[in-house]
Amino acid sequence: MNKTLMLALLAGFSITLAEAFRVAPEKYRGWNHVKSMVIFDQQHPLFNPFSGVHHVYVNHKGLEAIKKEGKRTFPDGTVIAIVFYEHVLDKGAYVEGAKRIEAFMVKDRKKYSSTDGWGYFGYDGKGKNLVKDMAKDCHSCHAQVKDRDFVFSVWTK
Amino acid sequence: MNKTLMLALLAGFSITLAEAFRVAPEKYRGWNHVKSMVIFDQQHPLFNPFSGVHHVYVNHKGLEAIKKEGKRTFPDGTVIAIVFYEHVLDKGAYVEGAKRIEAFMVKDRKKYSSTDGWGYFGYDGKGKNLVKDMAKDCHSCHAQVKDRDFVFSVWTK
Repeated sequence: MNKTLMLALLAGFSITLAEAFRVAPEKYRGWNHVKSMVIFDQQHPLFNPFSGVHHVYVNHKGLEAIKKEGKRTFPDGTVIAIVFYEHVLDKGAYVEGAKRIEAFMVKDRKKYSSTDGWGYFGYDGKGKNLVKDMAKDCHSCHAQVKDRDFVFSVWTK
Repeated sequence: MNKTLMLALLAGFSITLAEAFRVAPEKYRGWNHVKSMVIFDQQHPLFNPFSGVHHVYVNHKGLEAIKKEGKRTFPDGTVIAIVFYEHVLDKGAYVEGAKRIEAFMVKDRKKYSSTDGWGYFGYDGKGKNLVKDMAKDCHSCHAQVKDRDFVFSVWTK
């Protein structure tokens, strides 16, 4: 096997891994709705890349943990979905426009041990993979909330 | 029975009827999330009384109908929940504040025949009943979308 072919195969393999996990909207929109937010102005630290209306959902496995205030630990099998839409101005209101991003956090302590048990997956509105390196692209920022088991979202009361 | 007692009993009975239907957030937030919106400025025609962040959910019975474009008919047993939170400004973003209103539409063609098959229920953030007269307080406005079976909400794609 020549070096170019081997690199191509390795590249293919890593893309397959990164795209391995995805949940259909029909499914995650029937999970539990955790919270929502509209980031509409550049002054917000997350405006780039997370501008727009976003909603966070959790599957049944992670429901109890995400409701906890303070320290929490999500069980293996937890999946958190975040969907981002463009924020469209409509006479004094923001409504949901085109889908911008779909992102998923998957808890599996063994499989994702190098990122503290979390797998990160993200796609643009056309389904193109956005995550090249889970540790660098996602987990480095989530490390801010290590005591919340790396999940920012708080259950809206 | 004196007149005062009779009026008190009648008043009690009508309050019981109006408050008869309510779904807990733990339940409707696990239904299907239909759409969301943030009404933040007085120029929006629904600002009073529907300002803030709102989310619409539908139970399994009404899922197929609410996804339909154009004409649709919801089956008996459909329940639609709408929850309104205050919109809190946070450095270029709106987040969910205190709960303002919880409202429910219940389809039962026999029970609510005088309002085209829909029962309407609403409560403020403290649980106080807001609907005195379903026809006048709610259905008169929903009549605008008769061809959509009196439901404004459209499934976000």
